[in-house]
Amino acid sequence: MNHNKICILGAGGWGTALAIMLTDKGLNPVLWTFDSNLNNDINENHQNKTYLPGINLPEGLTSTMDISIVESADLLVNAIPTQYIAPTFDKYRIDLANKKLVNCSKGIETESLSRISELMCNRYNLNINNYSVITGPSHAEEVARKMPTTVVAASSNPDYAISIRDIFSTERFRVYTSYDYIGCELGGSLKNIIAIAAGIIDGLGFGDNSKAALLTRGLAEMKRLGNILGADPMTFSGLSGLGDLIVTCNSKHSRNRLVGEQIGKGKQIKQILEEMKMVAEGVWTTKSAYLLSKKHNVEMPITEQMYKILFEGQQPLNAIDELLKRESKDEFWW
Amino acid sequence: MNHNKICILGAGGWGTALAIMLTDKGLNPVLWTFDSNLNNDINENHQNKTYLPGINLPEGLTSTMDISIVESADLLVNAIPTQYIAPTFDKYRIDLANKKLVNCSKGIETESLSRISELMCNRYNLNINNYSVITGPSHAEEVARKMPTTVVAASSNPDYAISIRDIFSTERFRVYTSYDYIGCELGGSLKNIIAIAAGIIDGLGFGDNSKAALLTRGLAEMKRLGNILGADPMTFSGLSGLGDLIVTCNSKHSRNRLVGEQIGKGKQIKQILEEMKMVAEGVWTTKSAYLLSKKHNVEMPITEQMYKILFEGQQPLNAIDELLKRESKDEFWW
Repeated sequence: MNHNKICILGAGGWGTALAIMLTDKGLNPVLWTFDSNLNNDINENHQNKTYLPGINLPEGLTSTMDISIVESADLLVNAIPTQYIAPTFDKYRIDLANKKLVNCSKGIETESLSRISELMCNRYNLNINNYSVITGPSHAEEVARKMPTTVVAASSNPDYAISIRDIFSTERFRVYTSYDYIGCELGGSLKNIIAIAAGIIDGLGFGDNSKAALLTRGLAEMKRLGNILGADPMTFSGLSGLGDLIVTCNSKHSRNRLVGEQIGKGKQIKQILEEMKMVAEGVWTTKSAYLLSKKHNVEMPITEQMYKILFEGQQPLNAIDELLKRESKDEFWW
Repeated sequence: MNHNKICILGAGGWGTALAIMLTDKGLNPVLWTFDSNLNNDINENHQNKTYLPGINLPEGLTSTMDISIVESADLLVNAIPTQYIAPTFDKYRIDLANKKLVNCSKGIETESLSRISELMCNRYNLNINNYSVITGPSHAEEVARKMPTTVVAASSNPDYAISIRDIFSTERFRVYTSYDYIGCELGGSLKNIIAIAAGIIDGLGFGDNSKAALLTRGLAEMKRLGNILGADPMTFSGLSGLGDLIVTCNSKHSRNRLVGEQIGKGKQIKQILEEMKMVAEGVWTTKSAYLLSKKHNVEMPITEQMYKILFEGQQPLNAIDELLKRESKDEFWW
């Protein structure tokens, strides 16, 4: 693959961290952003103070606001947050019919209940064989600081997954390949539901046992939904499921965990969301996953309780009691 | 099952926490200990200041040093640390031929490379159908304080697993059943290797991405060894594998993680072990697992590097570089 022209859409923390990494590797990516402040900060100060404060960008890294870059790029990297993809792509009438794309964003579109590959292919004409997701436990700040990180590049097209792996791999950024892009997309999205629940456990002052139980049982219900939606349940035990779940549920920086922590401390969900600048993706993923679980008749007790807490005023302690009071079972059931 | 006579062998933190729980449930267990200080503290002060400081024991909970209690007990609960089981059982000539036993200790005997069920059955004549292990993410302090906790009771005999579940379940202690006692034993043991490695990551000052990668890849190699040793790989994704791994790798109290942290900070392993009162089980489990992996020709790159660090003077940073430089692979391979 000719990768002299890589365009990274979205100059948030993750897009910028990937741009730093690829620039250091000599691949000359260009960041695209609609935000003139970000654009200036990157081009003039070699900084992204908004999303990666304290990190010096390589001098060769440039940003543009000119969307025609998409036309001339050999490889597009999507780092636009899920809920802004459709508005952005619609506005600029982006067509992906002859494009190659790597998606680095997580979530399920709330309106259509679509994963991002579905959105890219069904709405913007991408060929699924030219789609890969890169996902896994990867705080942007740590990747920017070259701390050891591992991720998965997943595509239905094994050759494409390998070419993406080779483009992104560095000595400190290890990329595994997978064919299961559906499982990888779902893992990165559904873990945000459990992250909110983990925050509630923290906010209530419960301990490590409770949190470990939550993560383990949370992963089990992620697998159950994934199984129905065409994913390989095993994928959820890997970096894109388990790995990302661990990072997010323990992170002081995760917006999703933070929403949960405030709920656990007794704050009202309305007030929490009003006070946040950015929406915590997991709130909407909870709704999407709850609707999907009902549609496909999959038992997801944690997601159900989280939905009740977030949208129906359920008290967190009552939710925990309801979870603990369920009939005792064998550990694995579908 | 008549459970009027439950004897818990070992009055460490875990044995005592379980005794509190069963006493509160009205089951009148008796603790057995060889340690007269512990025995007095429990019977006279209703405390176990050595292993559960700050917790008040129920007044009905008693301890004994009389080993004949084993003879008259309907159910034995082993909470003696792995490396002390054989010395204790040999000393008191314990025979388990007509006994029912629940094992609550973790580890692999270094000399024979035996799991505890193998030890109990092969050396002390226990019938495997009367064996269950209880394991999972369960800090003793948190169970003693009635924080929500979930564990697995695993036995080759499903009826026995269910009876053990019913004896131990409370509103805040949820017990799942499993048939896979081999996988449950291995999960609780092998996670201590990864816990030492997690401590090294902490000691080196690496971030959440690295640790999440370690846990995820560590779990993958635990599954590979388990698969060869007759466990169901899926068990490792449950409470006894993943759940316990998460708790141990994030705990400030884990001796295993602490050993690793000191190694990561540059201390010599000899000095670390000399300064510890109790041996960190994971050091010996690393040796056992390394030998098992060589014997059965199972690839366990993290365990191998940990063995080199603990027993052959490998430098931690070199170990990490060796792990990251390995040939890129598909995420799942056996």
